[in-house]
Amino acid sequence: MKPADDSLRPWELEKSEPGPDLKVFKSRFDWRINPRNRHRLKCLVLESRDWVNIVARTPEKEIVLVKQFRFGRGEVSIEIPGGIVDAGESHAAAARRELREETGFEGENWSYLGASEPNPAILDNLCHHWFVDGVVRRHETEFDAGEDIVILKAKEDEVKKMISRGLLRHSLVLVALGRVITLPPIAALP
Amino acid sequence: MKPADDSLRPWELEKSEPGPDLKVFKSRFDWRINPRNRHRLKCLVLESRDWVNIVARTPEKEIVLVKQFRFGRGEVSIEIPGGIVDAGESHAAAARRELREETGFEGENWSYLGASEPNPAILDNLCHHWFVDGVVRRHETEFDAGEDIVILKAKEDEVKKMISRGLLRHSLVLVALGRVITLPPIAALP
Repeated sequence: MKPADDSLRPWELEKSEPGPDLKVFKSRFDWRINPRNRHRLKCLVLESRDWVNIVARTPEKEIVLVKQFRFGRGEVSIEIPGGIVDAGESHAAAARRELREETGFEGENWSYLGASEPNPAILDNLCHHWFVDGVVRRHETEFDAGEDIVILKAKEDEVKKMISRGLLRHSLVLVALGRVITLPPIAALP
Repeated sequence: MKPADDSLRPWELEKSEPGPDLKVFKSRFDWRINPRNRHRLKCLVLESRDWVNIVARTPEKEIVLVKQFRFGRGEVSIEIPGGIVDAGESHAAAARRELREETGFEGENWSYLGASEPNPAILDNLCHHWFVDGVVRRHETEFDAGEDIVILKAKEDEVKKMISRGLLRHSLVLVALGRVITLPPIAALP
């Protein structure tokens, strides 16, 4: 608890090797040396491009939501639009592209909400959060064979109800929404 | 955009098989059928026990933080205490145990802040968020050979500064803290 305790040292990287193929991630094992005791640890790292997600609000003050079946939880999930930044693409451009591709909405009034870490213990990437106000639907959506998405629009109060009821609880979506609206308590589970 | 569009169907599970060994996760591949077009998709699922994290506040209104080197990002990260729920353990018990083990702090005045999904696209688990007020340090910490942790205490204003400066940006930590304090804008990166 003393100031001197605050000087935490990085762990030396001894070696690194590719891990198993995971389709959406490249996995890798790093061997790190604990600076406290020189203990050697084999650490899993999932390598991923950065992600983006977008709080898009219409002139009627409705937030654009996407509803899709999510394979990790095996459940339908309500989220804001988002996706993966392409190689050579800025996260600003990725946010505009993902919003257009996933929902058909476009807007001009963009502001950056900052970045958070999806999981610094395992993942090496960031998620960039964007806000765009006054969006209108200008395009039809075109989904990949591997997608089935329903687009919703909801007023701030309805979004809060979805959160309170546990219908909308993707952590990265909550982080982005929390920059734009005041979040209610998350649904409590037993 | 019509009400009828809102009836999103779950994807039929065709088969499931174990994936490569990842140490901290069990991985699995599910074959799902897209209800829209009967397209068959091989989906990665990382199986994990539920996680917990804890906003612990001292009688002096300081929040207990842990600073550790995180292998995914390869950086030192400032977070709230947290960890994995053990087999047969309730998340309420796990929150108390993780706080005690990681920081030596204990308290009686616990409230559940609800659960969020770390990543419903890939992970099958939840993260349970807990708040405990009036904690005091009753134990020495005992770290595993594979841990090197520094404990900090910070007033609400200091925590907000850490977030603004991008020193504290683990998404699950932001979700938990956002239930207890009003979060400032996240640090914006270029």
